[in-house]
Amino acid sequence: MNTSVFESYESEVRSYCRHFPTVFKKSVGSYFIDEEGTKYIDFFCGAGAVNYGHNNPEIKKKLIEYLENDGIIHALDMYTVPKREFIETFEEKVLKPKGLDYKIQFPGPTGTNANEAALKLARKVKGRRNVFALMGAFHGMTLGSLALTTDKASRRGAGVPLDNVTFIPAPYMFPELDTVAYMQRLLSDDHSGIEKPAALFIETIQAEGGIRVFDEEWLRRIRKFCDDNDILLVVDDVQVGCCRSGDFFSFERAGIKPDIVTMSKSIGGYGLPLAITLIKPELDIWKPGEHNGTFRGNQMAFVAAKAGLDYMLENKIENSVKAKSVIVKKFIEEEILPLDTRLEARGIGLIWGIDFEKFPVQGLADKVEAKCFERKMIIEGAGRKNSVVKLMPPLTISEEELLDGLKIIKESVKDILAQV
Amino acid sequence: MNTSVFESYESEVRSYCRHFPTVFKKSVGSYFIDEEGTKYIDFFCGAGAVNYGHNNPEIKKKLIEYLENDGIIHALDMYTVPKREFIETFEEKVLKPKGLDYKIQFPGPTGTNANEAALKLARKVKGRRNVFALMGAFHGMTLGSLALTTDKASRRGAGVPLDNVTFIPAPYMFPELDTVAYMQRLLSDDHSGIEKPAALFIETIQAEGGIRVFDEEWLRRIRKFCDDNDILLVVDDVQVGCCRSGDFFSFERAGIKPDIVTMSKSIGGYGLPLAITLIKPELDIWKPGEHNGTFRGNQMAFVAAKAGLDYMLENKIENSVKAKSVIVKKFIEEEILPLDTRLEARGIGLIWGIDFEKFPVQGLADKVEAKCFERKMIIEGAGRKNSVVKLMPPLTISEEELLDGLKIIKESVKDILAQV
Amino acid sequence: MNTSVFESYESEVRSYCRHFPTVFKKSVGSYFIDEEGTKYIDFFCGAGAVNYGHNNPEIKKKLIEYLENDGIIHALDMYTVPKREFIETFEEKVLKPKGLDYKIQFPGPTGTNANEAALKLARKVKGRRNVFALMGAFHGMTLGSLALTTDKASRRGAGVPLDNVTFIPAPYMFPELDTVAYMQRLLSDDHSGIEKPAALFIETIQAEGGIRVFDEEWLRRIRKFCDDNDILLVVDDVQVGCCRSGDFFSFERAGIKPDIVTMSKSIGGYGLPLAITLIKPELDIWKPGEHNGTFRGNQMAFVAAKAGLDYMLENKIENSVKAKSVIVKKFIEEEILPLDTRLEARGIGLIWGIDFEKFPVQGLADKVEAKCFERKMIIEGAGRKNSVVKLMPPLTISEEELLDGLKIIKESVKDILAQV
Amino acid sequence: MNTSVFESYESEVRSYCRHFPTVFKKSVGSYFIDEEGTKYIDFFCGAGAVNYGHNNPEIKKKLIEYLENDGIIHALDMYTVPKREFIETFEEKVLKPKGLDYKIQFPGPTGTNANEAALKLARKVKGRRNVFALMGAFHGMTLGSLALTTDKASRRGAGVPLDNVTFIPAPYMFPELDTVAYMQRLLSDDHSGIEKPAALFIETIQAEGGIRVFDEEWLRRIRKFCDDNDILLVVDDVQVGCCRSGDFFSFERAGIKPDIVTMSKSIGGYGLPLAITLIKPELDIWKPGEHNGTFRGNQMAFVAAKAGLDYMLENKIENSVKAKSVIVKKFIEEEILPLDTRLEARGIGLIWGIDFEKFPVQGLADKVEAKCFERKMIIEGAGRKNSVVKLMPPLTISEEELLDGLKIIKESVKDILAQV
Repeated sequence: MNTSVFESYESEVRSYCRHFPTVFKKSVGSYFIDEEGTKYIDFFCGAGAVNYGHNNPEIKKKLIEYLENDGIIHALDMYTVPKREFIETFEEKVLKPKGLDYKIQFPGPTGTNANEAALKLARKVKGRRNVFALMGAFHGMTLGSLALTTDKASRRGAGVPLDNVTFIPAPYMFPELDTVAYMQRLLSDDHSGIEKPAALFIETIQAEGGIRVFDEEWLRRIRKFCDDNDILLVVDDVQVGCCRSGDFFSFERAGIKPDIVTMSKSIGGYGLPLAITLIKPELDIWKPGEHNGTFRGNQMAFVAAKAGLDYMLENKIENSVKAKSVIVKKFIEEEILPLDTRLEARGIGLIWGIDFEKFPVQGLADKVEAKCFERKMIIEGAGRKNSVVKLMPPLTISEEELLDGLKIIKESVKDILAQV
Repeated sequence: MNTSVFESYESEVRSYCRHFPTVFKKSVGSYFIDEEGTKYIDFFCGAGAVNYGHNNPEIKKKLIEYLENDGIIHALDMYTVPKREFIETFEEKVLKPKGLDYKIQFPGPTGTNANEAALKLARKVKGRRNVFALMGAFHGMTLGSLALTTDKASRRGAGVPLDNVTFIPAPYMFPELDTVAYMQRLLSDDHSGIEKPAALFIETIQAEGGIRVFDEEWLRRIRKFCDDNDILLVVDDVQVGCCRSGDFFSFERAGIKPDIVTMSKSIGGYGLPLAITLIKPELDIWKPGEHNGTFRGNQMAFVAAKAGLDYMLENKIENSVKAKSVIVKKFIEEEILPLDTRLEARGIGLIWGIDFEKFPVQGLADKVEAKCFERKMIIEGAGRKNSVVKLMPPLTISEEELLDGLKIIKESVKDILAQV
Repeated sequence: MNTSVFESYESEVRSYCRHFPTVFKKSVGSYFIDEEGTKYIDFFCGAGAVNYGHNNPEIKKKLIEYLENDGIIHALDMYTVPKREFIETFEEKVLKPKGLDYKIQFPGPTGTNANEAALKLARKVKGRRNVFALMGAFHGMTLGSLALTTDKASRRGAGVPLDNVTFIPAPYMFPELDTVAYMQRLLSDDHSGIEKPAALFIETIQAEGGIRVFDEEWLRRIRKFCDDNDILLVVDDVQVGCCRSGDFFSFERAGIKPDIVTMSKSIGGYGLPLAITLIKPELDIWKPGEHNGTFRGNQMAFVAAKAGLDYMLENKIENSVKAKSVIVKKFIEEEILPLDTRLEARGIGLIWGIDFEKFPVQGLADKVEAKCFERKMIIEGAGRKNSVVKLMPPLTISEEELLDGLKIIKESVKDILAQV
Repeated sequence: MNTSVFESYESEVRSYCRHFPTVFKKSVGSYFIDEEGTKYIDFFCGAGAVNYGHNNPEIKKKLIEYLENDGIIHALDMYTVPKREFIETFEEKVLKPKGLDYKIQFPGPTGTNANEAALKLARKVKGRRNVFALMGAFHGMTLGSLALTTDKASRRGAGVPLDNVTFIPAPYMFPELDTVAYMQRLLSDDHSGIEKPAALFIETIQAEGGIRVFDEEWLRRIRKFCDDNDILLVVDDVQVGCCRSGDFFSFERAGIKPDIVTMSKSIGGYGLPLAITLIKPELDIWKPGEHNGTFRGNQMAFVAAKAGLDYMLENKIENSVKAKSVIVKKFIEEEILPLDTRLEARGIGLIWGIDFEKFPVQGLADKVEAKCFERKMIIEGAGRKNSVVKLMPPLTISEEELLDGLKIIKESVKDILAQV
């Protein structure tokens, strides 16, 4: 393993490589393979960026063909064939059958950029600068979306005040407090000190916040709250969209329609950079070029994205996620939670967390993840004080691989519990 | 031409497609090809993103091979073989021979992200929130870099105040004012009201500002100004780096070494999303993960980026740009400027502008660009009130193609002048 | 009544004069007298600025003497005899006997200025920009203290974002929520998004917020919360200090010692402009002149302030307020609340509120106040949607006058209830 | 001299007392008298707060009478007889004869409060948050006006970012730069990065900035600039109004009419706290109470202010200032400047500065002021690095006293020059 180049020349900001100290060369299906040929089962999935499996062969084929045919590669936001095909597929095969009607904006090809675009548009539409976001939220690292992101370490990096956002306690934080009534009071009380926001940003499942799944009734209540108060509801589906929760969009389970939806990560199909901001048609008051970027038109990503959607639909990934979710839930409940009464688990679809928060020592989740790596698994943490082991395998994982992975986690938890 | 899908479903924010109303399918060398087979010579070059030509065959080959071999595609910031190879090539073959010593940060794969990272780091290193930027600057569209961007239309989209930046008049704006002495006075005068900045951000050639080339002596003076005042000099080489100016880095001609350099666009080699922030080693005080993003590790871009650097070096692109620059300059001076005394031209390397600012009517440059499109050329504008026709062909353009393009511009200018 | 001069020449911003449309000429004891000789009993007391009665003869005498002897009038912050005498009296006779130890800052002579000074100092001491303030708070109208002030109408006037403050729900707003635990969670949770504040600002009795008296146990808990978390506790005693609550300082009843206390209004003794910021000695890290102002040294106010303190001590105003408080409480409970079950009352010392919030119609309190004015009483409203009639007579009011006033209120409430 | 009380109990923020270490007891005419009976001639004049002399007997008489007659003392913003008389006098005898038409707002009784009110109103009228202010400016110490104040030491005290202001170089800073053309370019250039301001704030003579007198032509040009660009011109006449410059308003010499004028200091007539914001009638869009404060109605100050205006008019103070100005100018030019070629002087009316900036050592002005104090004169510094000795005697000073004072300064300058 030769990592000296990285140590000498790559910035200290590098992070995941410190947890997975090997040099990767290939990836296939549910596996990474390093340059020495060792295979690692992937329960991290690029934080949700390769939901349809690594190097999905159906998508790969399309990409090679496209390259061979000298398909246009870089086109800013000009009209291209791959973009048209992606839009058509997305609108006709995904949105329409779900009864959803959105226009598509292509911001720069990152999740944070999709959120920056959503922020700008929401503020423009409503003419208000304030935005509500939830404690526990993660929405990105550029200065606009960073202001909506809650973890101290990320915020500290800003170097400037992060204003124009009001943080609302997440419902799980103060169970005694009705958070919707709380927000309503902030607006109705002429002495709250809080400005009416342009939008309420939420993740329906806070991934970085610790795999916190908001219940459907609460989601419906915030949809109504937004309607009642002329506030836009923005759902950030960057991490938990693309079938991660069992439905293509994470908000479908609640039967709500957000005003704006942001997506990235797996929307690119093959792990290629792409991001979209979905906008209710009546809100699309952008002026031409008012938000732009050089890589809005990442054509290979359009090709892969379309192929990814086709793959997802043909293979009924939504259903398959729901089926696998049962397996994960059962395994955790029957095999892992019994290991210690202080363990907690939460999840939906194929995103699950095992929480060590109740243990008196910190850092146990980190240790479990390191143990998993020793057992050739890529898995990461999340949540307050990083106390949650986050399970996020590719959605295409086979049941056998899934169980293999779960067993690795179980064994690693056992190892660490033995040390406590 | 079927663009109804875009009109129905793509957001109104789409922009360039309005100037080039056709659907592109392929791209090769210096040409776009639309779905009807029409070829367009490209004098826009993805705003500098495909300097080594569209679908450069040497790079294409590497990409196809990589895909076929199931090279790892998405890896966040884990160690990978392609990243190592890119870093090695960049450090050993590009930086070292130029006497430059930088660590490389991979922020999200867009120019604005590279600038957001530079901003955060500069503020962290110096513990100051203010930053100096030049009037006329463009540094990106996310909220941090947007605060450094000067054009009204972009800033208006922010929806929140854009603070923490002091704008310095560019030297060409007030020739009677010594801008370096001006900055020094802001700092030395205890009644200026201006806070000492963490950094001075500059483009050595303001592209969006209207192809404004800062002279070498001035660049050396601001390097000294920054040194004298403990301020970081950050050069944004997103648009004019990668040999656009004749040197790989646009600041080489002045013999200066910035503290931080940001690059994107053509660093991806093939038009694929990639961005880097180069940091003097002693400034690399990032904590792990303090700035992150899902697509920091766009492996195909690493493959193309390495191949792009190899191509650039083997084909001595720097020299070839300098040679072609002479052709452009001569053509403009001898064939275009004589058309009207009010025309002005500025440029360096293969970035040139023909400025219609002195004409009493606005919009002439836009009309010239539209005429060029009728003649099957892709070309865009820049500058104050968009008065500048911006010439930015691929650096690999042949002399014949270059002259073909220049002639199209000349004819289009003539057409428009005839209407004035 | 000649008010045309005001209507022609005074700005539309004038406010109280619209509720009390006559021209006042004299004031004595508990009464205003207009230029036609009509007497009005004062239950407003300059919003707490003339606690020791209008034109208190003992103070008046000192002022006339001082003027006649050519005492120094304006002295910026130079040393003067009256300032020395005020400081000595305040320290020796007020603070020491109460076991309090504060240094005195003289900011500009207004409450908002005292709060601006407290804000600056707290931020300087702790090196943090954020400040916690309570929903329902009023701390002033200049931009620093306005950011801590919660009512929409005042905030709207700012014309710029009011940042650097986190508003905490007041305990009465969400009885189910433990507000101290809430604040602790904001700090302990590494994903709350909330920055640790330099200080927590409170009024122990929110006057403008609707006469909301915080209970002693809660005050002790926030004192402990601040200690535990290295946060300064700042008590704004501008309106409810100077014996209004029964003790000289409103926080005495809880046995706590704030880190910083701000006072104005009645500290000037005779209604003359004065403000002080009291600072625990170890926090007095001001540099000379770091906060200043032309009228820091309003010598006539020092003379009156000293005389006011002497008067207050000699006449045992604290005890007398407690005695009168019983009268007010009894009258309200026995004579006013029985008029309608929807009426609520709250108060302490000689600050009481009768709240019409539970009535389905708005504006009833305003109408009661107008009725009172018809009956020759000056009284004002407060609270959410101005639903509270605020009773704030001079502390020197005789029992007979007090009962006269209470009867006027009762009759006016009856009149308005008859119209509902 | 007993100053131990101050040292023990007054905050370290105290400032002028450190330069004038004695305890003052009385003040009469042009003199302070300390408690040991020593007389000090006053060339500081409360930074412009006692222009009509200390304890002016005509005003004193009115105040004593008013107190004796139990005139109303504290009235918030209710209608009162003294306010009516002040307004009438000010409108009829001051504004009308000068062809000026303003409505009067009474903010809190300090200069900074008048500026906070002006800021709020300007932003409200124009619906813009940005404001232009000049480098070298001083507009106050509360957070709104502090953002317009330029000196580093004051700004550092804010503890939060001071935004929403663009600083314009003062004309004397870069003589080669046409500052009006500069501002016009900021607005006309669509790539300046500068937002159009609601207002331009100026002092026509920067006092704290170092006695910088803006020339009349420049003042007329900025009036036109504001008109041309729909920007309000706000003149802060807090320090240099009330005849200090020779005219009652400092802008009269240029024949311009600002949109808003702020005054404080000597407007109170006798050194009593008062401030006014003058507003062109068509701009008076305040809502009732939108800016308020407890001491808006400082009735004794109204009494003194009216008496002060009467005194000023009867004694033709404007003319007398112009006459005395000639004496000061002549003395400085003939007696002081010849002492050293590096000395500079600037001034108008009865505000003059002797500038030691050109000397290689700092701190000379401070030393001169200390020497003056030894010679029983109260005088202070101003300007960059405090290099300017500021001459600001009461406007009522006799010629003899004036010459006495000038001689003290001359002798003190000589003493210090002898040490250089």
